Amino acid sequence: MNKILECVPNFSEGRNRENIAKIIAPFKDKAGIRLLDTQRDEDHNRLVVTVIGTPEALKTAMIEAMGEAIAVIDLRRHQGQHPRMGAVDVVPFIPVKDITMAEAVDISKAVAAEASRQYNLPVFLYEASASRPERRNLAAIRKGQFEGMAEKMKAPEWMPDYGPPEIHPSAGVTAVGARMPLVAFNVNLDTDRLDIADGIARRARHINGGLRYCKAMGVRLQDRGIVQVSINMTDYTQTALYQAFELIRIEARRYGVNVVGSEIVGLVPMAALVDTAAYYLGLEDFSAEQVLETRLEI
Amino acid sequence: MNKILECVPNFSEGRNRENIAKIIAPFKDKAGIRLLDTQRDEDHNRLVVTVIGTPEALKTAMIEAMGEAIAVIDLRRHQGQHPRMGAVDVVPFIPVKDITMAEAVDISKAVAAEASRQYNLPVFLYEASASRPERRNLAAIRKGQFEGMAEKMKAPEWMPDYGPPEIHPSAGVTAVGARMPLVAFNVNLDTDRLDIADGIARRARHINGGLRYCKAMGVRLQDRGIVQVSINMTDYTQTALYQAFELIRIEARRYGVNVVGSEIVGLVPMAALVDTAAYYLGLEDFSAEQVLETRLEI
Repeated sequence: MNKILECVPNFSEGRNRENIAKIIAPFKDKAGIRLLDTQRDEDHNRLVVTVIGTPEALKTAMIEAMGEAIAVIDLRRHQGQHPRMGAVDVVPFIPVKDITMAEAVDISKAVAAEASRQYNLPVFLYEASASRPERRNLAAIRKGQFEGMAEKMKAPEWMPDYGPPEIHPSAGVTAVGARMPLVAFNVNLDTDRLDIADGIARRARHINGGLRYCKAMGVRLQDRGIVQVSINMTDYTQTALYQAFELIRIEARRYGVNVVGSEIVGLVPMAALVDTAAYYLGLEDFSAEQVLETRLEI
Repeated sequence: MNKILECVPNFSEGRNRENIAKIIAPFKDKAGIRLLDTQRDEDHNRLVVTVIGTPEALKTAMIEAMGEAIAVIDLRRHQGQHPRMGAVDVVPFIPVKDITMAEAVDISKAVAAEASRQYNLPVFLYEASASRPERRNLAAIRKGQFEGMAEKMKAPEWMPDYGPPEIHPSAGVTAVGARMPLVAFNVNLDTDRLDIADGIARRARHINGGLRYCKAMGVRLQDRGIVQVSINMTDYTQTALYQAFELIRIEARRYGVNVVGSEIVGLVPMAALVDTAAYYLGLEDFSAEQVLETRLEI
């Protein structure tokens, strides 16, 4: 048994390469840790790191990286398109292999407790780790962003789960939690009209009557002169990728618009793609046991 | 680096469970070896084993299993629907991970040499290991089957590559070679007319002008009252699964027939399914590095 957990921390630094190098250093060349991906975005001024590891190794490295980020990022001077409330904005832990969601929740709480203590940082638990239902959704916690957080936290219902009851002056607040693997799946349209992408997103997403585990919004791809429906598949085991894709294709017809392609940002569990292939080929009685994996070990 | 080779030996025994247990015993509970699948078929009177391992461990286990099969199978008393020429009919080695086709060829030759010596068995090299072009195709070697092989081998062009120039009295001859992973992919049709499945197979397969790495024939599924196009994808990296599937769907239209499903028999490399999912979703810039595998290790 080899328990593997994934962590996808989002840091509010997408521009200064020196700072970024310091933040990701704790994930490099460590036993029990594999840094899979880093994506920095200058417009968003945000860094998204994808790392997997054994629970203990990942916990230690994550707390260290939070310290680095808090040391180099000052949110009072931070501007970017992506909403944010902390130098370390959000730290999701995702069960990957031989580990339950309950164990992932425990680790997220251990990281929240230790980081809040070491860095005097207010931490909110979210998603599966949330202490109350209204904190499950990250957007609810982050509403008001860094600039509004000091005021927001004066209300008793916004006391943090760990750390002091006021924002860290330069690092704001952080959300930590455990959640299902999330697949970032974007579908591109052959139009430049954002209202069409938004209209399709509204029909596809759960909140407006669409697919249960699908969040979506319209996004403009400036350089290509087109728009896309940007989707977060929040539980691919319940709502399949191909369902979202086909539903968007169907909704696009209303507007006489075509789907021209799609993209997966970051990682996707193999099962989500196998499920997709099995659907389109109409595979009968197919089992994941039949798949010879690329990174197979004896 | 962890070189992994696959072997899918076919033995001419699909009925006697005691004999089958003896044949597969050398693949069980061995370091460096993982027995993935065994399929025995009573009608074919044939056993297909799928095993992966490190080259050395697999070579040793394979030679041992050949000895067991030669000891318990007597082809003079063997009947079955599947064409066969030996107790150990065919032994293909398939590069799986961190290993080249040239290395797989070397291992196939080492197994052929050692088994022919130990068991006084004539061995023909085939596919990528073949010593001459007309021996690449297994069907050409096997033509005449066990019953015709003694006569066939009198011709100088059918001297075996290893071992004596005449058949083993009870075990016949064996073909050993290295080849690309082969995907057994069958597409089911909503008709019971075998001539339609055959007609579609002819249009899809390489030999009649179809896809380069596609062998196909019509097969009747007695119990379901339908027919299928049974396909061997001989190099899925060059001819994709979805190409074969869509071509069959297109050809089926000629007959007013529909595809009702498909099946993959045995193993399929992950890349073949990822490629399929990427095609149907129109994924742009997708890399296999983005896939979180199920049997992942740190």
